[in-house]
Amino acid sequence: MEAIRRRIAARALGAGDRLPSIRGFAATMGVSPSTVVEAYDRLAAEGLIRSRPGSGFTVAGHPPLAVAAIAARPDPAMDPLWVSRRSLDAGAAIPKPGCGWLPPDWMPVAALRRSMRRIARGGDAVLTDYGDARGSADLRRLLARRFAAEGLDAGPDAILLTASASQSFDLVCRALLRPGDTVLVDDPCYFNFQAALRAHGARAVGVAMTPSGPDPDLFAAALDAHRPRIYVTNSALQNPTGATLSAQAAHRLLGAAAAHDLAVVEDDTFADLEPEPSPRLAVLDGLGRVIRIGGFSKTLSASTRCGYVAAKPDLVEALVDLQVATSFGGPSPVAAGLVHGALSDGSYRKHLASLRTRLSEARRDTAGRLCDLGIRPWLMPRGGFTLWCRLPDGRDAAAAARAASRDDVVLAPGDVFSVSQTATDMMRFNVAQMSDPRVYPVLARALAAA
Amino acid sequence: MEAIRRRIAARALGAGDRLPSIRGFAATMGVSPSTVVEAYDRLAAEGLIRSRPGSGFTVAGHPPLAVAAIAARPDPAMDPLWVSRRSLDAGAAIPKPGCGWLPPDWMPVAALRRSMRRIARGGDAVLTDYGDARGSADLRRLLARRFAAEGLDAGPDAILLTASASQSFDLVCRALLRPGDTVLVDDPCYFNFQAALRAHGARAVGVAMTPSGPDPDLFAAALDAHRPRIYVTNSALQNPTGATLSAQAAHRLLGAAAAHDLAVVEDDTFADLEPEPSPRLAVLDGLGRVIRIGGFSKTLSASTRCGYVAAKPDLVEALVDLQVATSFGGPSPVAAGLVHGALSDGSYRKHLASLRTRLSEARRDTAGRLCDLGIRPWLMPRGGFTLWCRLPDGRDAAAAARAASRDDVVLAPGDVFSVSQTATDMMRFNVAQMSDPRVYPVLARALAAA
Repeated sequence: MEAIRRRIAARALGAGDRLPSIRGFAATMGVSPSTVVEAYDRLAAEGLIRSRPGSGFTVAGHPPLAVAAIAARPDPAMDPLWVSRRSLDAGAAIPKPGCGWLPPDWMPVAALRRSMRRIARGGDAVLTDYGDARGSADLRRLLARRFAAEGLDAGPDAILLTASASQSFDLVCRALLRPGDTVLVDDPCYFNFQAALRAHGARAVGVAMTPSGPDPDLFAAALDAHRPRIYVTNSALQNPTGATLSAQAAHRLLGAAAAHDLAVVEDDTFADLEPEPSPRLAVLDGLGRVIRIGGFSKTLSASTRCGYVAAKPDLVEALVDLQVATSFGGPSPVAAGLVHGALSDGSYRKHLASLRTRLSEARRDTAGRLCDLGIRPWLMPRGGFTLWCRLPDGRDAAAAARAASRDDVVLAPGDVFSVSQTATDMMRFNVAQMSDPRVYPVLARALAAA
Repeated sequence: MEAIRRRIAARALGAGDRLPSIRGFAATMGVSPSTVVEAYDRLAAEGLIRSRPGSGFTVAGHPPLAVAAIAARPDPAMDPLWVSRRSLDAGAAIPKPGCGWLPPDWMPVAALRRSMRRIARGGDAVLTDYGDARGSADLRRLLARRFAAEGLDAGPDAILLTASASQSFDLVCRALLRPGDTVLVDDPCYFNFQAALRAHGARAVGVAMTPSGPDPDLFAAALDAHRPRIYVTNSALQNPTGATLSAQAAHRLLGAAAAHDLAVVEDDTFADLEPEPSPRLAVLDGLGRVIRIGGFSKTLSASTRCGYVAAKPDLVEALVDLQVATSFGGPSPVAAGLVHGALSDGSYRKHLASLRTRLSEARRDTAGRLCDLGIRPWLMPRGGFTLWCRLPDGRDAAAAARAASRDDVVLAPGDVFSVSQTATDMMRFNVAQMSDPRVYPVLARALAAA
């Protein structure tokens, strides 16, 4: 029962898929066929699988995530949600080289305070009302101007504000996916994409990353083989690798996507950390099949909870409905006002410049100190805060993460990012979270234990 | 094609349900069987229905809401999302007797400004970090103390902060529902429950409301007939009727729920508007099968986007996972800080007292003026801002809402709230939104046109 439960939870078996034959499964598990029959009967009684006359047992439908999340966590260090929750709940005192954000003293706190005081002095409605269903028109106009400067024409009505880039992705999944659909992701990719897809009952299929984006041949082959509905990626400073999509790869991906009528979600969360602009699918495509999502958590504030999605008008219209249906109202006018205030503040550009310099120094320093431990970057990224690294001698990153966790240091082992679970000896480090003196000794001990 | 599409969108046909026979449907629609065959073939090509050898055509699975929402809007004035979006996007200048919140000058703006300035002066992390996965521990402790004062023991760990009561409901649906599940609602009920359930591919079944809660006999019969997974209600100041659950009804509902292993979602959004406390399912049950959700949009601020869910520990744990997977991080620490600040502010209790007095006066005044137009309250509620009223001479509320919409006044016609569509001559009025001098003349004209 546990073996089947795990396969369903891990989406190795999807809704409607046939279960292994009783005889075959009995052989695999080294038990008698009657044991398998009993296990299948019990799973059917639980509603997880169904008996279909003539076609054996099939998976009944994706189990609610509540079940899946718990069942999928036999090894917490390899579970996407484990890293998220450890990072979120660790508290300020615990070093978090595995987390995906910058420490408070790297953020433009003075600009946020100014923005906040401005709102406290401003009109009543921003403090009390739901606001437009699409979110603050001021912030949408500001975003539209930024997009136009990149060569992407999108009026404020083509933009919907949300509570975060993650929630933008969730809304897009709700609008475009049905349980059982396949979604193409980079391998490795941002681990929470996988958690979100699990919540939608979607199956993630990976395409191997190269330093210039996903491998275009493997991408085309995956489209042929799996007929995914959506591809989701970060073109700039891909998480976790820090890779940058090349113009050639972008052109080829979009060509293949068009041939398969694939929707592409481009998560631009790391845009403001880039030293200079790189190719974007949304700009090449012009929001035809590309949906741009993003947020302000990495360079401004994760606390304010504000993201956006830009797409073609009929999809945006459907996303507005979905957001109203599932969280009522638009995103917080207070949050949008804070973001708008801080982005319009003349100091934001300066903040970004000094942030990039500080990250470059931290990246060099971290890479050097990791190399002393035999840990080598897969790529030296052009910007951002992630370093995707290989551990020495094929050490097991999950074992190292478990060991470090016992020493109260949160690490992010490679397989958490890898749909194919082929990043066993890889690890993502956040160069802005490596200054605590406890980090390197704990890391050395964790490596020894792995 | 349109007829089938509407039935699917309105969930009259669910995933796996068989479509009407070709011959029968041709007779119903007054067209030839070959026309029906062609329509079914086209719907199958669109992926909305499937042809199953031997069993005719069946519904393929619930369509993404993007499709459903658009298809379900043949008559905007009867669609839940129509009222929400008209209300949200109407702007301050347009009178909104149909909306579900108070105007800015009814809200404790001074306390919010103080709370905001306090955060602007406070620590960096609240301004920049994601915060705990469960949300601000301060606000959870405050809520736990409030619950304890009612007789409901729930530690801060049994509480998860969310972006709104609506998002709390959405998370609970994600955890407990599969597409095709049935959910019991009050008839009439808060219209956005229906929109949310549609987004989950769930089927809503209604139980007729009485002034003391849903009819217990009909409730028990509905459990027998439909085997719902969840029942969702407002026990205090039910939306739209303003009904108050009696102790006897509460006891009987919980008994029936236990016999059917039904989860009960009690939306306590209107709690602070009650003149004195009334029975609560969560208090009787002690968070066994009852899940309490709520927010602060009605008495404090809709802009800050902060709600909560309190439930048994394993469910809360699963909801935390779901929230991380779908929107990352917990709810905004800034929003939680604002709410905590304003609730702890000594002035909140005074604000509530004066709010209740002001609402009582507005309720009496509105009821009197509506009676002059022949519009009669179904019930004079003990508190809150809604008046559920019957139009004179069986006038069609949807037609009246359409007429008023042309005059730029947003009304909420009865059938938007009614799963059974039996509230054709009913309308919900918000007594706090009736002070604009344009409202009554437009209403009189709309009635004449209906």
